[in-house]
Amino acid sequence: MKPLFGKHSEFIVRSQSPFNGGPPPLRIIQSQITPNDLFFVRSHGDVPEVNVDKYRLEVTGKVTKHLSLSMDEIKNKFERVTVPATLQCAGNRREELIRLKPIPKELPWGTEAIGHAMWTGVRLRDVLAGSGVDGEAGIRLHVDFVGLDETERLGQGFNYGGSIPLSKAMKGDVILAYEMNGEELPPPHGFPLRVVVPGYIGARSVKWLTRITVQDDPSANYFQRKAYRFFSPQTNAENVKWDEGMMLGESNVTSVICSHQDGDQISAGIVTVQGYAMAGGERDVARVDVSHDGGKTWTQAELTDDAQRWSWQLWHVDLNLKAGNHQLVVRAVDSAANVQPKDIEDVWNFKGYMNNAWHRVNIVTKKK
Amino acid sequence: MKPLFGKHSEFIVRSQSPFNGGPPPLRIIQSQITPNDLFFVRSHGDVPEVNVDKYRLEVTGKVTKHLSLSMDEIKNKFERVTVPATLQCAGNRREELIRLKPIPKELPWGTEAIGHAMWTGVRLRDVLAGSGVDGEAGIRLHVDFVGLDETERLGQGFNYGGSIPLSKAMKGDVILAYEMNGEELPPPHGFPLRVVVPGYIGARSVKWLTRITVQDDPSANYFQRKAYRFFSPQTNAENVKWDEGMMLGESNVTSVICSHQDGDQISAGIVTVQGYAMAGGERDVARVDVSHDGGKTWTQAELTDDAQRWSWQLWHVDLNLKAGNHQLVVRAVDSAANVQPKDIEDVWNFKGYMNNAWHRVNIVTKKK
Repeated sequence: MKPLFGKHSEFIVRSQSPFNGGPPPLRIIQSQITPNDLFFVRSHGDVPEVNVDKYRLEVTGKVTKHLSLSMDEIKNKFERVTVPATLQCAGNRREELIRLKPIPKELPWGTEAIGHAMWTGVRLRDVLAGSGVDGEAGIRLHVDFVGLDETERLGQGFNYGGSIPLSKAMKGDVILAYEMNGEELPPPHGFPLRVVVPGYIGARSVKWLTRITVQDDPSANYFQRKAYRFFSPQTNAENVKWDEGMMLGESNVTSVICSHQDGDQISAGIVTVQGYAMAGGERDVARVDVSHDGGKTWTQAELTDDAQRWSWQLWHVDLNLKAGNHQLVVRAVDSAANVQPKDIEDVWNFKGYMNNAWHRVNIVTKKK
Repeated sequence: MKPLFGKHSEFIVRSQSPFNGGPPPLRIIQSQITPNDLFFVRSHGDVPEVNVDKYRLEVTGKVTKHLSLSMDEIKNKFERVTVPATLQCAGNRREELIRLKPIPKELPWGTEAIGHAMWTGVRLRDVLAGSGVDGEAGIRLHVDFVGLDETERLGQGFNYGGSIPLSKAMKGDVILAYEMNGEELPPPHGFPLRVVVPGYIGARSVKWLTRITVQDDPSANYFQRKAYRFFSPQTNAENVKWDEGMMLGESNVTSVICSHQDGDQISAGIVTVQGYAMAGGERDVARVDVSHDGGKTWTQAELTDDAQRWSWQLWHVDLNLKAGNHQLVVRAVDSAANVQPKDIEDVWNFKGYMNNAWHRVNIVTKKK
């Protein structure tokens, strides 16, 4: 029996070591808050075993006061806050990109590398303020995170890491979390402490956090400098100039159908189509359109919840479908009027990130 | 001779009363800073004549101290700042949407309703602070702007207005400007005082500003509640439910070819293609791709300037074109990995806003 790290028995395990997986699509739309046992896991090394009594968080770099904090100090010295935030892997929906053209050595995520939780911890801003950091003065600085998990790339072993701009770090919603949905942070989600950066790709929400460094440049870590960069469709592993790729930060607008899968055969008549939508950065989901004919005609979907910044929106719509073949399509618009691109060819990139093309599901409806 | 309000003789005048127009495409790419005589004008009423000596700016609503400020007080009581910002009308490129399906009663803008200037004035944040407004406390409030210009819609006369969230207003880059590119603010641009809201559609940068109100809801003005809302392609004037449209705020990512026009006949060989690109909100232009074959193959363009928030990017690329027909295409990616949609059908909306489909120009190259 392989370890499931407390995950639901239906969990789709994409790799065992490091442990990576997520919930089946139908489970995703069951609730606004994703239960811990259904929350996707994206790790780059094995889950480290951490002795909480010996654990320290180091805060260093361009600070006036270096900090070395125990978990007790973190919990008692700073205000406890709870932030709802959706985390999504930049590789979510890579499977569709791979179908177009192979993407070797990367996980073939379906639509499951996303989840929404209530994160409890302390504001990164407060910890940085305790270290003497002045956000307004350091407008061009970066905050570098290093985790305790060990990984290997290009023949070298190192700890996972990444960074965000200080301007983002000083927003009150970036937190150092020690609880997830009211429970102690589970080991595969970063026990005892992780960063949660709402609106950004999951890769910046570094788990098993051990060191924070305020510095001039983005993280020098492989996963900031090479991986998690966004390249144009004409770039490949042979002609890549790494510096030309955009370091990913904020997520783009996306939406996915979870209620149906390619090849589903169902009864004609009223069909309820459901899924999730998400806007990145500080943008909200403004509208979700659903089509049953491959994008020729559209119906506006209902959003389940009031728009809440940094939270996905579950949506649903009833379509009256005649017997026959249908291509269901979903597309969302964010509050900056950014839309999703129609064709997957236009977003294909050789690392397989940020696929936010219209999501399409082919189904067959039959007379009752 | 019709009044040009100090504009360049080549100005494309889209309507005389109210005065609306912009520069020819080739003039747009002449310089990073758009000279005042080439800066586009979007007005909803005639240019008001303002007596500066009698002018007062009222600051009212949910404030602890009502203010009534003369221009001298505005200039002397608050710190003078200069902010570079691109302003773009939400209706820029409506002409392309109209070609697909008519959009009555709206201006048929080409690609000229955009410009980049250095704006000098005082921070809105400082004025609001002087009025006792606490941005953190009022996270859900709005800041309503009213101008001195009079307009008419649906048989009613009123002053132009609009609003932005207080959270945006408290950012240091939203300013009340009294100078444009080092000169006194010209009358068609809002003399003696206008708002400049970087990253937002131009409509929120209210000109001839006379009153600021801090309030619970967005502006009740026609141009906030009905116009400048974003609807889906299936909505039209007959079936519209105004509340379902998104109130426009942040701009979306866009790019335009200015060096060539549809039908241009030029020599084959190395052709330099040039234009502008812009990201909205607090996002930067991350990449600009140019195609000569309608979008089959792409070349990455050079950006003329370092990315500067709230500034457009002028770009250029040398393409080696054989004799024949070419469709030049440009598309940009912003720092949140948002891309432009390929087809204009997918962004068509009955008010004609936010067209950021790939910009296409058909040209013919001939042997030398």
